[in-house]
Amino acid sequence: MSRIDEPNYAHTKPPLHRMTTAIPLAPPHSNALRSEDAFLALIGRCFPNSHHRLLLGRGDDCAVIDCRESLCVSSDLFLEDAHFRMAYFAPEDIGYKALAVNISDIGAMGAKPLGFVLNLMAPKHLERGFWEAFFHGMAELAAEHDLYLAGGDLSDAPYLGIAVTIWGERPEGGKFLRRVQARPGDVLFLVGKVGLARLGLALLERGLGKTAEISMSVTPEDCPAAIQAHLRPALHPAVATSLSRTDWVRGLMDVSDGLARDLPRFLGTGLGCSLTLDPETLHPELRLFAQENGVDAAEWAVLGGEDYALLGVVAARDWDVLREKIPAVWRLGDVTAKPGIHLNGKQMRSRGFDHFSR
Amino acid sequence: MSRIDEPNYAHTKPPLHRMTTAIPLAPPHSNALRSEDAFLALIGRCFPNSHHRLLLGRGDDCAVIDCRESLCVSSDLFLEDAHFRMAYFAPEDIGYKALAVNISDIGAMGAKPLGFVLNLMAPKHLERGFWEAFFHGMAELAAEHDLYLAGGDLSDAPYLGIAVTIWGERPEGGKFLRRVQARPGDVLFLVGKVGLARLGLALLERGLGKTAEISMSVTPEDCPAAIQAHLRPALHPAVATSLSRTDWVRGLMDVSDGLARDLPRFLGTGLGCSLTLDPETLHPELRLFAQENGVDAAEWAVLGGEDYALLGVVAARDWDVLREKIPAVWRLGDVTAKPGIHLNGKQMRSRGFDHFSR
Repeated sequence: MSRIDEPNYAHTKPPLHRMTTAIPLAPPHSNALRSEDAFLALIGRCFPNSHHRLLLGRGDDCAVIDCRESLCVSSDLFLEDAHFRMAYFAPEDIGYKALAVNISDIGAMGAKPLGFVLNLMAPKHLERGFWEAFFHGMAELAAEHDLYLAGGDLSDAPYLGIAVTIWGERPEGGKFLRRVQARPGDVLFLVGKVGLARLGLALLERGLGKTAEISMSVTPEDCPAAIQAHLRPALHPAVATSLSRTDWVRGLMDVSDGLARDLPRFLGTGLGCSLTLDPETLHPELRLFAQENGVDAAEWAVLGGEDYALLGVVAARDWDVLREKIPAVWRLGDVTAKPGIHLNGKQMRSRGFDHFSR
Repeated sequence: MSRIDEPNYAHTKPPLHRMTTAIPLAPPHSNALRSEDAFLALIGRCFPNSHHRLLLGRGDDCAVIDCRESLCVSSDLFLEDAHFRMAYFAPEDIGYKALAVNISDIGAMGAKPLGFVLNLMAPKHLERGFWEAFFHGMAELAAEHDLYLAGGDLSDAPYLGIAVTIWGERPEGGKFLRRVQARPGDVLFLVGKVGLARLGLALLERGLGKTAEISMSVTPEDCPAAIQAHLRPALHPAVATSLSRTDWVRGLMDVSDGLARDLPRFLGTGLGCSLTLDPETLHPELRLFAQENGVDAAEWAVLGGEDYALLGVVAARDWDVLREKIPAVWRLGDVTAKPGIHLNGKQMRSRGFDHFSR
């Protein structure tokens, strides 16, 4: 697509065939990626363009993907200063997390991710080394999940932004798991941690002088797991597909905005929940932080976002057999007939985050 | 997903259930969209959330889409000041074109578009009226092509940006049409106009004082078709699927960056072409402009991007029957065994645009 501020009036440029038959990679002494073709060459080295589920790879107007009777599809933005900061994200972590948050959405359906497209808003000031690390971080995660990259788009932009669209399929013998099927008395369960990524974020932001609300005597060095949880959230793809294959799970979602905000979305209107969160079961780094700062660790955990834990619901009578079959699940609480969240016996009065309400 | 610069420390906000069970639409006297929910409510009014090919609509972690054995997938960015200007694009034209450029990619495969996801980078200063018009322009085009909107993401951002991912399928009795299958002697053909969108762009940019390279005595009022070609490019979905159903078409693509840049991509290495472009066959507005400015109208047309015409190739022996069956095709020239583009007997020395080479 043409860029507006330089229409194609280029009558004095070299002959067409000289400009298009060779890949104009930046010369070795340059640190910039000088052309779209240089970007595509780098992407080509990081992401194989063939896969047994990819019928036609990148390079045409569309890719052609193999599918069975249905696919689940999701898409997430990952934008500089909205979702990550260049100051404390290594380039490979940006590449990793931009894809990870999308893979998490597929797992939240109990599905198996297959492939994705990548839209990249790429500021000119970022150097070749940045992009090599960025694509490496993303490609490593893609390879780990056997994902193909089917295409995308690239544009110069004033700040770094990534938009990924991902798709997946029902695992063999499984089904897609939706959100809203809970009933009063059901058991709520989690796979993965909560609250840890929020602690990591708070520590990283404090390093930039951005979070003055809470003084913290703990340091990032005390909390490597919390930092890691924010920069490279853990994913649970194998547990997700196992849950999809059982007969007991009534609903599943991933907790991206924090339990306080995501639980009402999960339960729908008319239902609430009573959570029992023994602080002793939380991560030691979270307990240390809470103790040093006089904070309620359980409430901190319920308000914290970006852990990408899986939140599920199961009939009370099926809880024991589910836990026996899938030991990664842990009991969070019970569904109640009255809206609202009770945490360890007290009604919660806080909520999660809305991008536009401030 | 949480926003980094305001962690969820909100202990003094209203109870959770009051914040989440009602849709917090902006009050009638406000011109802003104050929350993510207000955006989603507006999107819900513009885009139906059910469709016979959409098995699970928006609102869960993923949508679930119905598919047969394969899908073609494409994704395009549409960014303020890179791909459009707020100064002369009406909000409904931005919504229209952001989706149109994606639909064009599906047509370029001879395929039928089915659905899409929308990622929106939405600056806070844009008012409710802007968004109503934006979604109206996009929804109108989606309805025209019977497309469902399957989801997406929304974030505050310093400038307006749209990332659409779209998918489509092989029409019944048709096949996907790729780019690279031309042979020397084949006939190149087009569906749609070329050069007109470039003229529209030049006129609109001149209005902002941005194009000083060429003085123009013609005005935007003289050239409504050129302006329209830039703001709302014509699409050719019915012709695309008809071409897919014939046995003759060897390759197809859409011309987004201009013929000068897209022809070498279409033909691949080792082939060139000889184009015969009688200026008398070009649009009267383009002829008027060329005459008034001493410009070669044919060369202007070949260098111009963003018309989203379809470029195809057919064996010479099949040309007559193709033209008889699908009258929308017009003959552009012939494939040659020697790389490079000859236009009306002269070798061209100009090329299209690369976002990163400047």
